[in-house]
Amino acid sequence: MRRVFEDELNDLHVRFSEMGMMVNEAIYKSVKAFINHDKDLAREVIHEDKHINEREVELEKASFEMIALQQPVTTDLRMIVTVMKASSDLERMGDHAVSIAKSTIRVKGETRVPAIEKDIADMAEAVKEMVEQVLDAYVKENDKKARQIAEEDHGINDFSNNIYEKCIDEMTRDADTIVGSMDYMFVSSYLERIGDYVTNICEWIVYLKTGKLLELNSNASEDEF
Amino acid sequence: MRRVFEDELNDLHVRFSEMGMMVNEAIYKSVKAFINHDKDLAREVIHEDKHINEREVELEKASFEMIALQQPVTTDLRMIVTVMKASSDLERMGDHAVSIAKSTIRVKGETRVPAIEKDIADMAEAVKEMVEQVLDAYVKENDKKARQIAEEDHGINDFSNNIYEKCIDEMTRDADTIVGSMDYMFVSSYLERIGDYVTNICEWIVYLKTGKLLELNSNASEDEF
Repeated sequence: MRRVFEDELNDLHVRFSEMGMMVNEAIYKSVKAFINHDKDLAREVIHEDKHINEREVELEKASFEMIALQQPVTTDLRMIVTVMKASSDLERMGDHAVSIAKSTIRVKGETRVPAIEKDIADMAEAVKEMVEQVLDAYVKENDKKARQIAEEDHGINDFSNNIYEKCIDEMTRDADTIVGSMDYMFVSSYLERIGDYVTNICEWIVYLKTGKLLELNSNASEDEF
Repeated sequence: MRRVFEDELNDLHVRFSEMGMMVNEAIYKSVKAFINHDKDLAREVIHEDKHINEREVELEKASFEMIALQQPVTTDLRMIVTVMKASSDLERMGDHAVSIAKSTIRVKGETRVPAIEKDIADMAEAVKEMVEQVLDAYVKENDKKARQIAEEDHGINDFSNNIYEKCIDEMTRDADTIVGSMDYMFVSSYLERIGDYVTNICEWIVYLKTGKLLELNSNASEDEF
């Protein structure tokens, strides 16, 4: 029984990590499509999102069955709960990749601003690195690393503020860039939110290892006000 | 034992519903603060968000302990899993209320557009109604109602498209409205996302009642492309 349970738990981990890689690829492709104005690639991201959603449902079902049939406690239960919770975060990260892809398809040849597109590409690169780091921390159950990922700056806010300022400048200077700049703002906000989900997953890794539920580096902090 | 379990389960339901009401109030207050340029009320929303976060942690802990100690199966387990999952959705809805509140505090007396603010107030009213309906459907475990809430239009997309068009028009017509219009766009996108979370909770209510994991009325649908 224990043997079966451990195999199942291992399988759950593997499928969760795979889901993470699917999501990371979706984010990467969606930004690439946006920057290169590649509507076919954007459609691919939208199309492939259903596999991510299916994987989430699979993980939900497997988790539920493992709890119901094997009645795990303490660490084992915590592992399953982590997958249950963190898979929702991954699924929503995938949804944001879809939103970026949809922005790409919506674009109708407006005046583009290469300097801002460069910032978006750099921001996406930083987000992609966060996603890769968090998947690695999950696989290694490295709660220290998870805390570090959540607490480090990664420059996401700087990218976001910078893109915001540049968009305002461009729109004020040349009204033809308004529609395109709105898209830049949306894409930047989706990337920012993907970063927030990475922080959520970090919280789940800390929970997995320590049993403690923390709020790491929340954007909802009131310190600023 | 069964008696204790049922009391605990009932308590879990009550505390989840209370959390829903806290979140609904946060959304309501945040939009009111935004429309009335009321920075004190906005600060109140930001300050009170910690109670919502604490409640989520409480619900997580209670759910975990109930699973570990009482080893529930089938319907009972499903109820606990629903609270575990849906409380994350509520918590994130609260985060979006905080984002709206932060937009209010950021505003520095830019040129405002009353017509768009009216649309935002109406959109917020529609979202608030969705939130109230979903909490009611949860309490009554009414999966039909939950499907209906998720599948009905509620006009959220219309509001959002309408606000987008109006913002583009205003920004093009008068560059002084650019900064303010960006805030309108952000607030509208937060409200839209709160609507998406309502749909997630609807999915959990269907799951609670039927054991089926569905994707209801996903914005990630590829039909449009």
